Amino acid sequence: MATHRFDVLGLGNAIVDVIAPVDDDFLIKAQLRKGAMQLVDEAQAQSLYDAMGATTIVSGGSAANTIAGLASFGGKGAFVGKVRADEAGHAFAHDIKAAGVHFSTPPASAGPATARCLVLVTPDGQRTMNTFLGACQNLTCDDIDADDVSASKILYLEGYLWDPPAAKKAFIEAARIAHDAGRRVALTLSDVFCVDRHQQEFLRLIREGVVDILFANESELHALYETADFDAALVALRQEKILAAVTRSEKGAIVVKGQETHEVPAAPIDKLIDTTGAGDLFAAGFLTGFTQGQALDRCARLGALAASEIIQHFGARPEIRLAQLAEQSDYLQML
Amino acid sequence: MATHRFDVLGLGNAIVDVIAPVDDDFLIKAQLRKGAMQLVDEAQAQSLYDAMGATTIVSGGSAANTIAGLASFGGKGAFVGKVRADEAGHAFAHDIKAAGVHFSTPPASAGPATARCLVLVTPDGQRTMNTFLGACQNLTCDDIDADDVSASKILYLEGYLWDPPAAKKAFIEAARIAHDAGRRVALTLSDVFCVDRHQQEFLRLIREGVVDILFANESELHALYETADFDAALVALRQEKILAAVTRSEKGAIVVKGQETHEVPAAPIDKLIDTTGAGDLFAAGFLTGFTQGQALDRCARLGALAASEIIQHFGARPEIRLAQLAEQSDYLQML
Repeated sequence: MATHRFDVLGLGNAIVDVIAPVDDDFLIKAQLRKGAMQLVDEAQAQSLYDAMGATTIVSGGSAANTIAGLASFGGKGAFVGKVRADEAGHAFAHDIKAAGVHFSTPPASAGPATARCLVLVTPDGQRTMNTFLGACQNLTCDDIDADDVSASKILYLEGYLWDPPAAKKAFIEAARIAHDAGRRVALTLSDVFCVDRHQQEFLRLIREGVVDILFANESELHALYETADFDAALVALRQEKILAAVTRSEKGAIVVKGQETHEVPAAPIDKLIDTTGAGDLFAAGFLTGFTQGQALDRCARLGALAASEIIQHFGARPEIRLAQLAEQSDYLQML
Repeated sequence: MATHRFDVLGLGNAIVDVIAPVDDDFLIKAQLRKGAMQLVDEAQAQSLYDAMGATTIVSGGSAANTIAGLASFGGKGAFVGKVRADEAGHAFAHDIKAAGVHFSTPPASAGPATARCLVLVTPDGQRTMNTFLGACQNLTCDDIDADDVSASKILYLEGYLWDPPAAKKAFIEAARIAHDAGRRVALTLSDVFCVDRHQQEFLRLIREGVVDILFANESELHALYETADFDAALVALRQEKILAAVTRSEKGAIVVKGQETHEVPAAPIDKLIDTTGAGDLFAAGFLTGFTQGQALDRCARLGALAASEIIQHFGARPEIRLAQLAEQSDYLQML
């Protein structure tokens, strides 16, 4: 394999998270489905923001969180995503670069504002997300740097990219470049409703060899295979010619590759605060291990460890260095 | 006394906090004094921001934090402070209104951006603050609504207002209106270096009857009376014709009024994360009790309780309802 500059290049929606705690009544009154990500237009976003309590603003975006997590583990990461040249866009760019990630996608100088995700966190730690895609809709094939993609061991794509139409083309183009360079392509299914919106296309990506590695949680897997039975979904998954990691919240994670299976328990936590980013950070840990050639069960434990850090505070970017957490972790020593 | 609309009206710099964890080396390299607030110009702020890690953005401002805390206890608060009509300014206005505080100061449509405080938090939980005053410099007497001031039991002023020259006049004007309406005026000394900058003027405010209630921490009191001896500072303080509450970090707080003294221990915490806002929230709790006519030792305990909540997370606005915390607190039951 040729030399590489990056372990993982992530392509995703560049989003700033605007987080507030709410009670369950708030979700009911606003008719929001708890735990889901729904797309909202600018007017809906404004009206929801007006109704929310005081917020905490941190950079987010699913693939961006994953790459920031990888960098926190000491991995070499790059990110491609579109912001506008506004205050939120500057903050997004600052934060991902400050995390040690290569980020050079030019910001849009006009058009809709940098994307916002209004994250409503209920007392049970569940997050309900409302995304105004904004500038993400301006991500196109022109933003894909073929050299960067070719120079990355893994191209990591988020399912959410299937929402803004132009980004879908950038997704396909990036995957083609990666495969031409002999690299691997990973996809996260992102969200159960995202799978509902794009189920047939996601299955086609997996079956036509566009995707080599799949990340999903239990509900997303159920939605992908249209079954409420986890074992039935796993049987279907084993028949795809891919490596797949499925996260199951407090039940841990399971990695399957044909008939090969690795199960790991969840990493212990003190207190669940906000589940935002649990899946993103699982992927960060897993890909860190995977690009270092580590065993799949250790990859999964690195994922579970990163997820355990992120769910103990607001926001989906690590607050401590994950490399240090990994060094000190009893959970990893259990292997 | 005439009817009132507000328990406390706060006048202060309207600031958005941009927070990042740093190690001690960062402070040394940037030649910053740990634990202090220093004023920076726009270029310095930009260069410091570029060097900082990924940030968490929350509304701040000393008096604004106090009033938000008072509202979280269920008190009726109003705030006067100047932002520009930019993204940060909108966020500030949203957050303080979302906290239940009356806020109607018109934003500046031109001039410098909304004020930012770059808050660097070291592993010991100490915060080092770097404030770009921006739009705060445009706060003037025109922003003081005489009806609102007259309709508030207490006018609460931050010492930091002495930094932007026009705000100083607004401070004096507001105090005059409050006293004309038979209300009381409270001042927080804000920061030890702020006291160094304005020591003589602060003493004059206290001695000429502009200030009735004083909030200070130990170091600010030392700076005010130019002594390293706490007991000597207390002797000097007792000679002023004011009510004073002095916070002493983990040593608790002491309230003095002439020869009358009330000492309370610090409220217990699990883990110190970020001391930003400890003094602001002490004032919030104290003023909540005071405007309800509660005993001074209970006022001080309410203050210490609020401070204990704020230092256990990033940011200086409460993350839980302080009214609820007070209801469930063993620390308050110790009285």
